[in-house]
Amino acid sequence: MEAGGQLTQTTEVDNFPGYPNGVTGPEMMEDLRKQAERFGTDIRFGYVSSVDFSSLPHKVVVDEVKTITADTVIISTGATAKWLGLPSEQQYNGFGVSACAVCDGFFFKGQDVAIVGAGDTAAEEATYLAKLCKKVYMLVRRDEFRASKAMVHRVLNTANIEVIYNTEAKEVLGNGKNVTGLRTINNQTGEETDLEVEGFFVAIGHKPNTEIFKGWLEMDETGYLKTIPGTTKTNVEGVFACGDVQDHYYRQAVTAAGSGCMAALDAERYLAAKEDEVKVSI
Amino acid sequence: MEAGGQLTQTTEVDNFPGYPNGVTGPEMMEDLRKQAERFGTDIRFGYVSSVDFSSLPHKVVVDEVKTITADTVIISTGATAKWLGLPSEQQYNGFGVSACAVCDGFFFKGQDVAIVGAGDTAAEEATYLAKLCKKVYMLVRRDEFRASKAMVHRVLNTANIEVIYNTEAKEVLGNGKNVTGLRTINNQTGEETDLEVEGFFVAIGHKPNTEIFKGWLEMDETGYLKTIPGTTKTNVEGVFACGDVQDHYYRQAVTAAGSGCMAALDAERYLAAKEDEVKVSI
Repeated sequence: MEAGGQLTQTTEVDNFPGYPNGVTGPEMMEDLRKQAERFGTDIRFGYVSSVDFSSLPHKVVVDEVKTITADTVIISTGATAKWLGLPSEQQYNGFGVSACAVCDGFFFKGQDVAIVGAGDTAAEEATYLAKLCKKVYMLVRRDEFRASKAMVHRVLNTANIEVIYNTEAKEVLGNGKNVTGLRTINNQTGEETDLEVEGFFVAIGHKPNTEIFKGWLEMDETGYLKTIPGTTKTNVEGVFACGDVQDHYYRQAVTAAGSGCMAALDAERYLAAKEDEVKVSI
Repeated sequence: MEAGGQLTQTTEVDNFPGYPNGVTGPEMMEDLRKQAERFGTDIRFGYVSSVDFSSLPHKVVVDEVKTITADTVIISTGATAKWLGLPSEQQYNGFGVSACAVCDGFFFKGQDVAIVGAGDTAAEEATYLAKLCKKVYMLVRRDEFRASKAMVHRVLNTANIEVIYNTEAKEVLGNGKNVTGLRTINNQTGEETDLEVEGFFVAIGHKPNTEIFKGWLEMDETGYLKTIPGTTKTNVEGVFACGDVQDHYYRQAVTAAGSGCMAALDAERYLAAKEDEVKVSI
């Protein structure tokens, strides 16, 4: 239950156009809510527990009891970053711990950071961080990457990335306010090592919030909703999707905002065309 | 020469997320410039007079004299609204005269407005305005629309749109500050009629600013750059396009901003992959 999604857990948003000095995630979400309300948007809170897209109008069940019917539904349920599950990781989330290098890397310019993950995204984020940071420690749980050869090649050829294999994060170290280090453990030898870092990036993947749409909407193998490229249209008439729930590639706040606007226009045009049909059939 | 594009000619931007109370176009462009500079962007002013995309690196000629070479080029030259060419139209531009109903319609809630145009966009904007405004006068120059049958049907079935055929706008009337009316002329009879309206929308089309890319990049029949849907990639390696120059469908400030971010990420990933190639070939 995070109204505002991943941004509500973001301490500082620096790259959303319109905030020249940056803004905190919760503040920004508050601004967006106010702006929507100024135009008469009827905002309601609730947890959508299931949907029924079998016939028009579409049905959306809220809090398992109340059914709303609607001619169009815009899905913007987002994605959730996967975490390691360490209590210290949550304690310092937003204070040195981050799940998005592109969003937060800039705050660690010239500093030392660690990143955990072995896939394409982790590899890409590590090379991204390497351009900004002095040193990047990259923790890989097994003795090899899951990432593509090209991405591994890129990581191994970046001078200031040090890959540490067979190693996991055991605890995020801090001074009560910010991250000061990372305790690692070699899962072959059990040996523990403390790294002095100011930032810790968790890049072990995201999970799109699409459970309730299974069986109704087309998804890719990881559960991201499929939209017709360049639009927000799903495979079901009148159902549109925007933001991270349908985008595992760009995943930025402003790309999500842009696709939200596209969904609104797609829905509006769909309804207008629908009205015509109704008029013609009368 | 409008650094900031169409938005610099927009008095009030109300629908860009992040400005709960709205903002003027020039203020917003100033905010975005400051924000880009804070991240170390090297901003240079100049008029790109020609390009050469025949080989890498790409060449861009500035002010007809200076050639810049670059591994990637992001094109965001936008589109320009077509105007009727009346002096009074420019005098009240932003003070009752607008070329974008979706952007500015809300300012005329409950008021009377006029719109000129006969194509699909004009028809769509008229029906959009009809939902917000008390009365919409629609001026069509010929005795029929250019719009599709479905769109014409929609217009003719909207109670508060009055279509006036064979009629053109002769002058925008105002009190020196805001629009107060529109003088129209019937091009068959020469008869002039004054309409009492607070807003005047010009919907006779847009022209993408793509002259200098002719012969280099793929365009549609109206000159909009073609990108691979869901990306900002053009048909030339390393050349990306974002914003209205490649979008005649959504055309909102926030969709343009979103696609700008996509272009930056596409370019960055392209460069990263390129670096790998170079390293491999060494």
